[in-house]
Amino acid sequence: MSDESVLVIGGGPAGLEAARGAADLGSEVILVEQRARLGGTPDSAGYSAFALDHRPAQEVLEIARQAVLTHPLVRVHLETEVSSFAGELGSFRATLKAADGTLTEVSCGAVIIATGFDHFDPGRETQSYGYYEFEDVITLVDAERMLQAKNFVRPSTGEPPKQVCFIQCVGSRDRRIGNEYCSKVCCGVATKEASEIRELVPDCRVFIFYIDMRMYGFWEDRIYWKAQEQDHVNFVRGIVTEITRRGDRLVIKGEDTTMNRPMEIPMDVVVLSVGMVPSEGTKAVGKMLGVAQDKHGFIVPSESALDTVATSVPGIYVAGAAAGPKDLDDCVSMAGSAAMKAVAALRRRSPVSV
Amino acid sequence: MSDESVLVIGGGPAGLEAARGAADLGSEVILVEQRARLGGTPDSAGYSAFALDHRPAQEVLEIARQAVLTHPLVRVHLETEVSSFAGELGSFRATLKAADGTLTEVSCGAVIIATGFDHFDPGRETQSYGYYEFEDVITLVDAERMLQAKNFVRPSTGEPPKQVCFIQCVGSRDRRIGNEYCSKVCCGVATKEASEIRELVPDCRVFIFYIDMRMYGFWEDRIYWKAQEQDHVNFVRGIVTEITRRGDRLVIKGEDTTMNRPMEIPMDVVVLSVGMVPSEGTKAVGKMLGVAQDKHGFIVPSESALDTVATSVPGIYVAGAAAGPKDLDDCVSMAGSAAMKAVAALRRRSPVSV
Repeated sequence: MSDESVLVIGGGPAGLEAARGAADLGSEVILVEQRARLGGTPDSAGYSAFALDHRPAQEVLEIARQAVLTHPLVRVHLETEVSSFAGELGSFRATLKAADGTLTEVSCGAVIIATGFDHFDPGRETQSYGYYEFEDVITLVDAERMLQAKNFVRPSTGEPPKQVCFIQCVGSRDRRIGNEYCSKVCCGVATKEASEIRELVPDCRVFIFYIDMRMYGFWEDRIYWKAQEQDHVNFVRGIVTEITRRGDRLVIKGEDTTMNRPMEIPMDVVVLSVGMVPSEGTKAVGKMLGVAQDKHGFIVPSESALDTVATSVPGIYVAGAAAGPKDLDDCVSMAGSAAMKAVAALRRRSPVSV
Repeated sequence: MSDESVLVIGGGPAGLEAARGAADLGSEVILVEQRARLGGTPDSAGYSAFALDHRPAQEVLEIARQAVLTHPLVRVHLETEVSSFAGELGSFRATLKAADGTLTEVSCGAVIIATGFDHFDPGRETQSYGYYEFEDVITLVDAERMLQAKNFVRPSTGEPPKQVCFIQCVGSRDRRIGNEYCSKVCCGVATKEASEIRELVPDCRVFIFYIDMRMYGFWEDRIYWKAQEQDHVNFVRGIVTEITRRGDRLVIKGEDTTMNRPMEIPMDVVVLSVGMVPSEGTKAVGKMLGVAQDKHGFIVPSESALDTVATSVPGIYVAGAAAGPKDLDDCVSMAGSAAMKAVAALRRRSPVSV
């Protein structure tokens, strides 16, 4: 493997697109994924459908997976992590450690970090919502899994729910826990899930309690308006301060800030719209590769106005949610841009190949 | 010029990045811009600073401009439009028409459309805000020009204002006028401008009337929190239904939907946060090149979940706000991705060059 090869760390949507892109430009690509299968968090968390176009997630991921797995220039290492790293643009060296302990030394000219995010753990400092206390308090991810299986039920009874609500901004926009940022996608994902619940369980009432509905661009008409007008999801600008149990049902308490009145509503299922935090892989890889990270562990682009993918280290690029909260379009666009920049940087160094 | 060259239409942030990217990958690039200078709408509209990092817009644009103007593989045609177009991936032919009427025939293998957006015309069907009636009713763009000049005044008197407000969603999220989509950037731009006004005119009170503050991702803490806490901008969730004049001041009337009460507040300057519509160039170029467009004229990506830049015609890509409301990061990432895909598509056709 020559030093014109590109090492892509992470095999989610961003890593798959970055690997395919660099390989399509003629570079050899080493793709490293710690899980046993390509697809990243949308795969491992069991996503049902992607927000904007409502396409089944597995259908989309399978296209991206196959493009990489069948590409003659991409070598995929599953269940593998980067265990050491050194060098500079044009001559990096990495040690890959497989699940069975086998170590492989590889050299590469450039690196694309696509190590993604984790969902915020709702047990962390937000005990008022009782995620670990009440079986019927779930997260966006738990809901997504049930929706993928086309079987949305009350976990405690296995019965279809009559009343469901989403609580937005769990782990986001919250100075108390140190996550001041907005996680960008939760409004869209919750609204998409709310529509899916209404389609699966037509007599279930669905509420979304929010601060601002951040349905930017075409999410507004394609997801938000659809949910309101076609699926009759109830959007309530309000704050839920407490979840308790009364009999066998949950009760949410809080304030409807549009009507300026306290509310207390029984619910069968409460879905916590958990935000994005950097994955353990993002935190560890960023540190090992020596790129600038913010206080959370997200990788900081070096020059945000003109370049969304360069890190603080020449030859190392970042794509997707490793750089902060991103939607799928962000991940795919950044990955394409990172592939372009990585290959261009290597060809500038050896002009015979351009 | 061989058929491995790439034609980039539009010299704004997306077109500049696409041109530089394709050229950095070794392709010859023909960059066509109808204005007399590169930089696009942020240049011609006189933007002051970009939203997320508050860097002066001209400083950022000049770096992008120089990267293209000094690149040996990029040929720039200013004051030029595409007047005819034919062919297919690998062998497109275009006629370029310069301002003096000179016609030039060029061939190219792939095309990147980066023809951008226009600001919504607030005279169009929103007469209640009186943009063409009251001198002190201005738009985000008019405000940006004054902020670039570091001289924010009441247009009617030339004096610093004591009370200024922004009205969000003018031309966006509005079924009445057919623009159901959200324009994505206006919340961030208005909030950035509000902070800049507070810095220039410290005793001026600044209000932002909004439906939802769509400060996604890091805009939340870096722009929104800064405006609230450091610059003391007043955010009011409310609807302004009418602007009238009383004496020499404007009066806005409407409803504060958080406090559930009518409001009537005198203002020295009212800034309309006008949204994005496709530029005339986007509408015309999309039609001439035969790519799918939505009812507004925005160019529709062919497969949104996996590819943000492919159009309905193989070999023709789109980057930036020609494809819908986009922020600067979107434009730059899409442009990099489009450059990668255009060059990769051409090299797949002639494998000797990879």
